Amino acid sequence: MLFISVGLVACKQTNKSKDSHPFDIATLDDILLPSWNEGSNKEAIIDFVTKTTTKGSAEFIPVADRIACFDNDGTLWSEQPMYFQLAFAIDRVKALAKDHPEWKAKEPFRSLLEGDMQKVLSGGEPALLQLVAASHAGVSTDEFNQNVAHWMKTAKHPTTGKAYYKMVYQPMIELLDYLQANDFKTFVVSGGGVDFMRVWAEKAYHIPSYQIIGSSLKTKYEVGADGIPKLIKLPELNFNDDNTGKPVGIHQHIGKRPVLAFGNSDGDYEMLQWTTTAKGYPRLGLILHHTDAESEWAYDRKSAVGKLDRALNDADKNGWLVVDMKNDWNKIYPRQ
Amino acid sequence: MLFISVGLVACKQTNKSKDSHPFDIATLDDILLPSWNEGSNKEAIIDFVTKTTTKGSAEFIPVADRIACFDNDGTLWSEQPMYFQLAFAIDRVKALAKDHPEWKAKEPFRSLLEGDMQKVLSGGEPALLQLVAASHAGVSTDEFNQNVAHWMKTAKHPTTGKAYYKMVYQPMIELLDYLQANDFKTFVVSGGGVDFMRVWAEKAYHIPSYQIIGSSLKTKYEVGADGIPKLIKLPELNFNDDNTGKPVGIHQHIGKRPVLAFGNSDGDYEMLQWTTTAKGYPRLGLILHHTDAESEWAYDRKSAVGKLDRALNDADKNGWLVVDMKNDWNKIYPRQ
Repeated sequence: MLFISVGLVACKQTNKSKDSHPFDIATLDDILLPSWNEGSNKEAIIDFVTKTTTKGSAEFIPVADRIACFDNDGTLWSEQPMYFQLAFAIDRVKALAKDHPEWKAKEPFRSLLEGDMQKVLSGGEPALLQLVAASHAGVSTDEFNQNVAHWMKTAKHPTTGKAYYKMVYQPMIELLDYLQANDFKTFVVSGGGVDFMRVWAEKAYHIPSYQIIGSSLKTKYEVGADGIPKLIKLPELNFNDDNTGKPVGIHQHIGKRPVLAFGNSDGDYEMLQWTTTAKGYPRLGLILHHTDAESEWAYDRKSAVGKLDRALNDADKNGWLVVDMKNDWNKIYPRQ
Repeated sequence: MLFISVGLVACKQTNKSKDSHPFDIATLDDILLPSWNEGSNKEAIIDFVTKTTTKGSAEFIPVADRIACFDNDGTLWSEQPMYFQLAFAIDRVKALAKDHPEWKAKEPFRSLLEGDMQKVLSGGEPALLQLVAASHAGVSTDEFNQNVAHWMKTAKHPTTGKAYYKMVYQPMIELLDYLQANDFKTFVVSGGGVDFMRVWAEKAYHIPSYQIIGSSLKTKYEVGADGIPKLIKLPELNFNDDNTGKPVGIHQHIGKRPVLAFGNSDGDYEMLQWTTTAKGYPRLGLILHHTDAESEWAYDRKSAVGKLDRALNDADKNGWLVVDMKNDWNKIYPRQ
């Protein structure tokens, strides 16, 4: 009889793990989120997950409503000295320049090809949109995916020398895994391009392509003479998934209000606000504060990339937790 | 020893069911898709699912790529004598008419309030868009959801007398369940409004809100004086998820090409084409042909709603299976 019992108990635990915790949190506390230092922020995260996933808890959230949204640039991976997608756009423009002799006389291409990024960036959003159009449009979605995949394999970050996709944050990967193991659906909600992200983010974050939301260009469906259809990326903005665009994108794509949101800049303000002012369930809003000049970068209110000012001012008032990268984390990037 | 083995075998099967079939198809064949009659279409569906989910099969599809897309109106539920969402719009306009005395003198509202639907529909798309704007816009997303939920609870279909949400097709629910049990992610890809569908479709089809794709109005993020944000639905089309819009919507939302698509009208042509011309994996395209005048409706080439002409002509050439509602199904709606 003992043997039967052992067999049945093993089966029971297998089934149970699908409904609640994958392991006993009380006894295995010390291995949760290992790259997070002990402290009030780590405690608040574990407390939130525990109370919202414990059956019978007054704050229990049914699986179908466990929606957690994460900004990407500066929240799940680094974003300095410029958004990585901009580095891709620049490399792509350089690669295409031989077919575009006219770029030598045309801004912002001219400055870019001469290596004067300061001047390129001084052109503001219109200059950036021209670079995006030249590097992201006029190709099919399949070709674009191949371009991104090739760049990801070959390009290296200028200061760390790492492949860009290796500059994801280890503590955030652990947090995503922890939430996923507790039946939260994790979404990326980024101002970055959705096509750019999906090529690598599905594997990097263990998040399916359809849980990645971002900005996009319009696309056009075309059927060639061979009967084979393509989607062509057009040089026209379809959706800007930033600021108030984030709650709009969350509604369009998910159709439910998240119970957890994690960002790092003022562009995430409305996503945090939309999440934490919703009624019913407990909600958790978090901001990653870049404070580690030694292992990553330290920046906030005055940064051209990832400016964090208004959201930092209002964090306390709104009950958002500010995660201090230097103090709350003991590791930045995954081991090679 | 026998007892241990029994225990372990039971465990093994539990684990195995997550990776491949939930049960042994060879021996339990007769309980699969019970509302589908035996025949080449049912056989083709089961064959497709079996070969694409059997490890070691040359045609195996990894779980992450098992994307199946279904049209809604006329594919998952009925659409006669008019799209059910239009019935909602009409009822909503009637309910709002007391606050809009000017509608008595303004088309298409005047004809609608006088019960002359023929004249309303003769106004074509512009008239319909006016009705959609009046019934779907100018409210917050939360209010809209409540309006739809209330209508679903109270409104009855004019000829069947059923609540509209009970006019989903039992054989299609079985097919969705069968695919879901085999780790396919099932998506709704509808020309209908995504906000309208999400209120009831999540429960009706066992499909999470973020796997429902549809047409939408633009929304605006507004924060009230009380600090509470709302998303307001604007009377302006954001996205038309029909015809070439379906592959565009699938790309925007899912970012992968489906391996299975199921539609019933020419509006699904491009979704089927986009699905079945993709390379790599096996693909399956299906068209539901409404042939059962007794238990549902019989219509195709000349119907104002759910016109099926071009896709029917090209079905053979494109390798799409035509499901004959009268011959392939033995049941239409779920039991009350």
